[in-house]
Amino acid sequence: MSRWPIPEPMQQALALAREAAAAGEVPVGAVVVKDGAVIGSGGNRPRADHDPTAHAEIAAIRMAAKALGNERLEGCELWVTLEPCAMCAGAISHARIGKLYYAASDPKGGAVEHGALVYEQVQCLHRPEVYSGIGEAEAVELLRSFFRDRR
Amino acid sequence: MSRWPIPEPMQQALALAREAAAAGEVPVGAVVVKDGAVIGSGGNRPRADHDPTAHAEIAAIRMAAKALGNERLEGCELWVTLEPCAMCAGAISHARIGKLYYAASDPKGGAVEHGALVYEQVQCLHRPEVYSGIGEAEAVELLRSFFRDRR
Repeated sequence: MSRWPIPEPMQQALALAREAAAAGEVPVGAVVVKDGAVIGSGGNRPRADHDPTAHAEIAAIRMAAKALGNERLEGCELWVTLEPCAMCAGAISHARIGKLYYAASDPKGGAVEHGALVYEQVQCLHRPEVYSGIGEAEAVELLRSFFRDRR
Repeated sequence: MSRWPIPEPMQQALALAREAAAAGEVPVGAVVVKDGAVIGSGGNRPRADHDPTAHAEIAAIRMAAKALGNERLEGCELWVTLEPCAMCAGAISHARIGKLYYAASDPKGGAVEHGALVYEQVQCLHRPEVYSGIGEAEAVELLRSFFRDRR
């Protein structure tokens, strides 16, 4: 039996999450892909950067927008290891990301399928297509092991 | 008759909103105050910066966190001319801002008293005290005049 392989962008996001954990940050990683190429990437690093907004998604979006010279990431996908929080879900909408792929769902902090349900609000001007569960087991294990070690 | 004066931090936020408008950005401004001193400030500039996350609140929070060398802005106030969106409301919560003062409410994009209602979710780990309507007439007139000129 062979397990269906995790798509390359999510593998890169998981690698960034592992790097975040090694640096003592909550392990979350993200990449922005346009036409099959990664144009933005980042790991979670609010502690290292002294920046409460330095979530993986925000880093990846800012890098991609700089690369394109455009605040709107038309035709881009965002791959992230954890369900985005309200801040990141809002940023994804502002950035006009076309497709959002995330690994683990986050009942405590997520705002896509939990809590603020950012994309289900009538005011939401742009909703990405959303796909979840890709690489879920790997992302969950990274988070579990990080929080287990810190207890 | 004399009109109750707008507090100094909101006057600064309104000045930043005016600068944003002059630069062709949606006029929103924000400052972060700690112990009576402004330690972070910013105007809305997603177009100029090619950064969809470059809202006034995010700029002010990032500057303040860098100034303190801490991702948590304990004991800080954020003053902003418009009701924060989901992205900014989430960032304010992550930053542990103690008090949020905003001028105009935003039925279209706000996520404090509208839409995602970020601080009313059970998952929300930190809720600031919220005060609205301070400098409302001035903030509304800035936005109205900006969008009128663009039509």
